[in-house]
Amino acid sequence: MSLLDLFIEAGNLKKLPRTGWLLRGVSNPESIADHSYRVALITLFLADELRAKGVEIDVERALKIAVLHDLAEARLTDIPLTAQYYLDKGKAEKKAAMELFIRTPNPREYFRLWREYEEGLSLEGRLVKFADKLEMLVQALEYEKAGFRDLDEFWGALDSLRESEFYEHFRELVEELAGLRKQNR
Amino acid sequence: MSLLDLFIEAGNLKKLPRTGWLLRGVSNPESIADHSYRVALITLFLADELRAKGVEIDVERALKIAVLHDLAEARLTDIPLTAQYYLDKGKAEKKAAMELFIRTPNPREYFRLWREYEEGLSLEGRLVKFADKLEMLVQALEYEKAGFRDLDEFWGALDSLRESEFYEHFRELVEELAGLRKQNR
Amino acid sequence: MSLLDLFIEAGNLKKLPRTGWLLRGVSNPESIADHSYRVALITLFLADELRAKGVEIDVERALKIAVLHDLAEARLTDIPLTAQYYLDKGKAEKKAAMELFIRTPNPREYFRLWREYEEGLSLEGRLVKFADKLEMLVQALEYEKAGFRDLDEFWGALDSLRESEFYEHFRELVEELAGLRKQNR
Amino acid sequence: MSLLDLFIEAGNLKKLPRTGWLLRGVSNPESIADHSYRVALITLFLADELRAKGVEIDVERALKIAVLHDLAEARLTDIPLTAQYYLDKGKAEKKAAMELFIRTPNPREYFRLWREYEEGLSLEGRLVKFADKLEMLVQALEYEKAGFRDLDEFWGALDSLRESEFYEHFRELVEELAGLRKQNR
Amino acid sequence: MSLLDLFIEAGNLKKLPRTGWLLRGVSNPESIADHSYRVALITLFLADELRAKGVEIDVERALKIAVLHDLAEARLTDIPLTAQYYLDKGKAEKKAAMELFIRTPNPREYFRLWREYEEGLSLEGRLVKFADKLEMLVQALEYEKAGFRDLDEFWGALDSLRESEFYEHFRELVEELAGLRKQNR
Amino acid sequence: MSLLDLFIEAGNLKKLPRTGWLLRGVSNPESIADHSYRVALITLFLADELRAKGVEIDVERALKIAVLHDLAEARLTDIPLTAQYYLDKGKAEKKAAMELFIRTPNPREYFRLWREYEEGLSLEGRLVKFADKLEMLVQALEYEKAGFRDLDEFWGALDSLRESEFYEHFRELVEELAGLRKQNR
Repeated sequence: MSLLDLFIEAGNLKKLPRTGWLLRGVSNPESIADHSYRVALITLFLADELRAKGVEIDVERALKIAVLHDLAEARLTDIPLTAQYYLDKGKAEKKAAMELFIRTPNPREYFRLWREYEEGLSLEGRLVKFADKLEMLVQALEYEKAGFRDLDEFWGALDSLRESEFYEHFRELVEELAGLRKQNR
Repeated sequence: MSLLDLFIEAGNLKKLPRTGWLLRGVSNPESIADHSYRVALITLFLADELRAKGVEIDVERALKIAVLHDLAEARLTDIPLTAQYYLDKGKAEKKAAMELFIRTPNPREYFRLWREYEEGLSLEGRLVKFADKLEMLVQALEYEKAGFRDLDEFWGALDSLRESEFYEHFRELVEELAGLRKQNR
Repeated sequence: MSLLDLFIEAGNLKKLPRTGWLLRGVSNPESIADHSYRVALITLFLADELRAKGVEIDVERALKIAVLHDLAEARLTDIPLTAQYYLDKGKAEKKAAMELFIRTPNPREYFRLWREYEEGLSLEGRLVKFADKLEMLVQALEYEKAGFRDLDEFWGALDSLRESEFYEHFRELVEELAGLRKQNR
Repeated sequence: MSLLDLFIEAGNLKKLPRTGWLLRGVSNPESIADHSYRVALITLFLADELRAKGVEIDVERALKIAVLHDLAEARLTDIPLTAQYYLDKGKAEKKAAMELFIRTPNPREYFRLWREYEEGLSLEGRLVKFADKLEMLVQALEYEKAGFRDLDEFWGALDSLRESEFYEHFRELVEELAGLRKQNR
Repeated sequence: MSLLDLFIEAGNLKKLPRTGWLLRGVSNPESIADHSYRVALITLFLADELRAKGVEIDVERALKIAVLHDLAEARLTDIPLTAQYYLDKGKAEKKAAMELFIRTPNPREYFRLWREYEEGLSLEGRLVKFADKLEMLVQALEYEKAGFRDLDEFWGALDSLRESEFYEHFRELVEELAGLRKQNR
Repeated sequence: MSLLDLFIEAGNLKKLPRTGWLLRGVSNPESIADHSYRVALITLFLADELRAKGVEIDVERALKIAVLHDLAEARLTDIPLTAQYYLDKGKAEKKAAMELFIRTPNPREYFRLWREYEEGLSLEGRLVKFADKLEMLVQALEYEKAGFRDLDEFWGALDSLRESEFYEHFRELVEELAGLRKQNR
């Protein structure tokens, strides 16, 4: 197995739809790669802003986590909540992530980064989790603006943004999002 | 929970793509419901032909199994082979099927039918399995005829058709399919 | 002509969109096969419930009719109402159905079943008609829930459900559907 | 009924796929309007070239025919060959065209133009027929170049181009097309 | 370079989406060719009506302009407003149009027609501009009717229709459109 | 203007297709965001490998460049080669990038990073360029494997990979890709 195989397999993320939108009637929803891209973009700006505010954060580490955090879905697909009730997604992702990283020069490092996200073990891992939720809500906002209507339950994630350790730093951003959402309705 | 909820949930099967094709570059592949429909159609004709040949078969039972056999995917999505290595799909489907059938007037009967397919417990269950594989190969044939090229590995299923107890009855059909495939290449 | 040819031709039902939705701006609507699948599923549960209530109904027959009722559209496509004003769809379907069934071992039986649906000649045929309309309305409900808005005229079918002989048995189901629709608006 | 209604109804041509491609596995084929547009473009250049060669041709008339020739499909959809065997498409189109043109200021003129195409009554009508076939073959060429494979039977139309009265004027064009097709295979 | 090359290149207009809709969340929007087709159709009826009202107008010329007006987009794509702020689209279209027309027998004539549209040099060119805006609004109306919601800014074009020299002739049409829009909201 | 606005605008990259594929008949091609995601992934692994080999490289910088390098296309769309002949894309991107970055806390830094890519001013910028081309070829390989055929001209980029300063480090990877391509044909 080579790095090229890994790059080819990552191509699955472009083909696979985000099933949460699909199941609520968004007919051609974004791909997993679409989502991951904006998570990385958001992570970049939030991490830099934290650093500017004097928070000690490793931006390289945060970006790597953002790029890697959904890679296991290249094998697992985007398993929706309705399925997670029946399947041990966490365990499966862990195993798939390990086997994917085995092909790389630094399997240990990448797997540790992946766990930092999954288990919230580092500031950087938790920041990507914050960015992951924020990204989903920005997308929900866009779909609702376009006319889609069955997306209420996604907005529960707003609470977890507000309860996050990062909320004090990005309160304005989160509340601006919440405000735009109200206008949409 | 009502029958209407069940019908609405079954609507997921129309939205969810069959991931095997998707991952091999078929851009707008059939839905799970598309597949299930033709499985039912094939089951109907094969079951009637078996009966005409003197095989004792319960056609009603076979048709019910065909209609129900993928229903659990309304909650689980079409989990591809690459994921099944990491997830206990069988166990998840069993549990999801049970919880779906709970809403119906005859949960026991439907769950028994579902198990007949899954575990090959009855002639009718095994016939739907045969129809399920046959359907997939007819679809592979159509995609290849249209120009798609990365579908070789699906054709391994031809062997399992040939080893099936139904092969003696449908040899001509199976070999006609195999012949058309050769022409495509 | 062989059964395999029939199965391949039935594949057209997966490719062909239901034109009613398409013409009202649903961009990637369900296929004819998508629709037929859920008609079969609904038929299964309604027929079993009728039987449980002591109604004499042949469930095998009902399921066969459900699977076969739109098969002629594999040749005719889903001709919309705007076209039926100019075309004798009924006559065309009859002829196409006959020529499709000719390839099967029991052309007479299948054609009789098809007529039972088309002309309402049997309880089972009329039940599939009921299921066919119900399926369409469940789909309309889902599209409206997702945000699509130009589907009012489909809801006229609610009246024909209420006037049906099956309404007394499925009043609750039909009215639950009507209620959900009101919430959507 | 107003002109605006007619313009809105013509919007159906954008939504409706050309079913010939769809049934051969081209997953997102061109719309009827896509096709009609290029027929008009081809008509423009061929008509001007004929005029330059001294052929007496009414270019305005030719362009009008090109724009109007598929308008009835806004009500009828693109009924494929498999269906035309069972349906009197010609009669239906005639009636639908008449009723569409009724809303316009000059129903007689437009209907006469439509008949010139349909029945080959004028040089201009026949030129649009030639352009219509040519357009279809250029599209087949493009789909084949992209990788689609099940389009052989369309190329029968090459013969009718060669037998046309316009072949002497556009021999080079037609044979260049035939040559490119050979390279594709 | 041959006419056939030009026809093939015009095929790009079928593949390219109108980016204005795409960027506002319409998932499978019309193609440029879809739009151009209806511009030609609208031009036909408006030009004939003007002539009937005694306005001296060259209908052939108007139709040619309609068919040619977006041809340069086969090379440039539909560059959205957000991009035009950074790019000299006008200059680029002029050059691309010239180079496309070079392949035709009458490059000068076609380029002059194209300029009549672009620069409003003739009555016919300005009529196509009017038809172009009208077409866009009819499409916006249809998308809004289907449920899409982020299209407000397109309706600014209503003012330019009202300020046009053609408004006096098509006041009723324009106001009917404006009225339907109000109902949609 | 806020960071949220920037995140929303970046959502355009999910909606916009990569036009190179679209124009060659790939019907639902990847989005710009799809592409950018894998460029970031490739950059991550190549940068880490370079560092492991003793090359002094700033991985954080490389990842930032990868995430930002196509951001200006959120305003400009993916302008294809056929258009770049008529438009000064470089100048437009520069201006659009500047105006996008103005909204961020560190406009200077981001713009400098963007220029490092665009003008090849740093090792990290040139590595992302290498990753950008490599990503495109991996995608071409996948489309060809799926059956698409009109992608020959993309493979010219193989030469620029071979001429790159990074070729000595990734020779095996590049030649493995070239080898797989030969098998596809």
